[in-house]
Amino acid sequence: MEEKERLKQLAAESAVDFIRSGMVIGLGTGSTAFFAIKKIAHQLHNNILKNVVAVPSSLATEREALRFGIPLTTLDEHPAIDLTIDGADEVDPGLNLIKGRGGALLREKILIQASRRTIIIVDESKLSSRLGASSPVPVEVLPFAWKPTALFLTSLGGPNIHRLMPDGRPFLTDQGNFILDCNFGPIEEPVHLALKMKERAGIVEHGMFLGLVSDVIVAGQNGINHLKIK
Amino acid sequence: MEEKERLKQLAAESAVDFIRSGMVIGLGTGSTAFFAIKKIAHQLHNNILKNVVAVPSSLATEREALRFGIPLTTLDEHPAIDLTIDGADEVDPGLNLIKGRGGALLREKILIQASRRTIIIVDESKLSSRLGASSPVPVEVLPFAWKPTALFLTSLGGPNIHRLMPDGRPFLTDQGNFILDCNFGPIEEPVHLALKMKERAGIVEHGMFLGLVSDVIVAGQNGINHLKIK
Repeated sequence: MEEKERLKQLAAESAVDFIRSGMVIGLGTGSTAFFAIKKIAHQLHNNILKNVVAVPSSLATEREALRFGIPLTTLDEHPAIDLTIDGADEVDPGLNLIKGRGGALLREKILIQASRRTIIIVDESKLSSRLGASSPVPVEVLPFAWKPTALFLTSLGGPNIHRLMPDGRPFLTDQGNFILDCNFGPIEEPVHLALKMKERAGIVEHGMFLGLVSDVIVAGQNGINHLKIK
Repeated sequence: MEEKERLKQLAAESAVDFIRSGMVIGLGTGSTAFFAIKKIAHQLHNNILKNVVAVPSSLATEREALRFGIPLTTLDEHPAIDLTIDGADEVDPGLNLIKGRGGALLREKILIQASRRTIIIVDESKLSSRLGASSPVPVEVLPFAWKPTALFLTSLGGPNIHRLMPDGRPFLTDQGNFILDCNFGPIEEPVHLALKMKERAGIVEHGMFLGLVSDVIVAGQNGINHLKIK
């Protein structure tokens, strides 16, 4: 296994230790989150965890969880989640995040906002001194509005690329929307930028997660580091 | 024709006078906007207006425009609109609006934000001293998130009703989302409330249109009144 994959797995398995029997959990999307899913399944099958039900943040995660036999539920049945475990593309020193490389940012943000606690799991390559330094900000937009929205995002300082599938067709989110990957570079005022984006109808959600999580588990060459906001 | 319908028609036809040949126009949704569509079609057929193309704000408006022979376009082809004409459910003294009784609030707000100018047309019964005094605020929400979102909106002071069709099934917007009609009563701080709503993932759009329009044409017993923000 590649070293980075080993670190992702290490972070994911550390986070699973925070799950207790009887919890409603939220499952993130992406390669790191999938390591958590495998570990949770293992603990359920071995009766280390019992009566855990999970809300998946994407159709891909739903398939993965079903494949490993994790009991699923919905926000209709459980509008409050005890603990969500998810990855991130970039983490700043204030534990603000950029997410959405997997295209599931909208449902991931919904789960995190519906959760009492969220633990983000990353390998150390995801740490960043300032959001935007290493990742574009994915923005989910309504296809009806994508053209004026692309111009608007450029006017905010984020020239953007319409995300495509390998076959050249537009990537579609689970909601049937487009993703514009916006290259803002290092973002001076993420709260202000987020505000400007959310004022614009047709921007369904953006990939900046500001002030939403209090725990990040980072796996690096020197082991596990649990970052916390007090 | 009922008196209120006559007033709607009067306001709509006054607004159409602001359209010039060659313009890209945005077409609102609802009974008042449909009077404008009829008048625009009449002027096109009689060569009073020429080379006008329209972006419809809903599938219903698209059907209506096609039925009357108005040439249609999209925001992909014309990301900037010269003039949008639309109705409203409530208008306050600062020309802030509540819209969305017809369920088209998202695309209507997209069109207005993409427009150089918007003229709102109402009969005088829509004037209100404070937003929320006479209308609920329609909120378009992702079905995946509707339950926690309904609880969240209640916590903001807006107990809400899940909008249904006459047959009892949930009303679906053109995007396949649900509408929660939120009864805030008269809203003290609409800008603050809008901010809180937009911070929440799963709220695709809300029906408060704050600071977005500069012209409202009101038809009343004493004729036409053109309200303007300088």
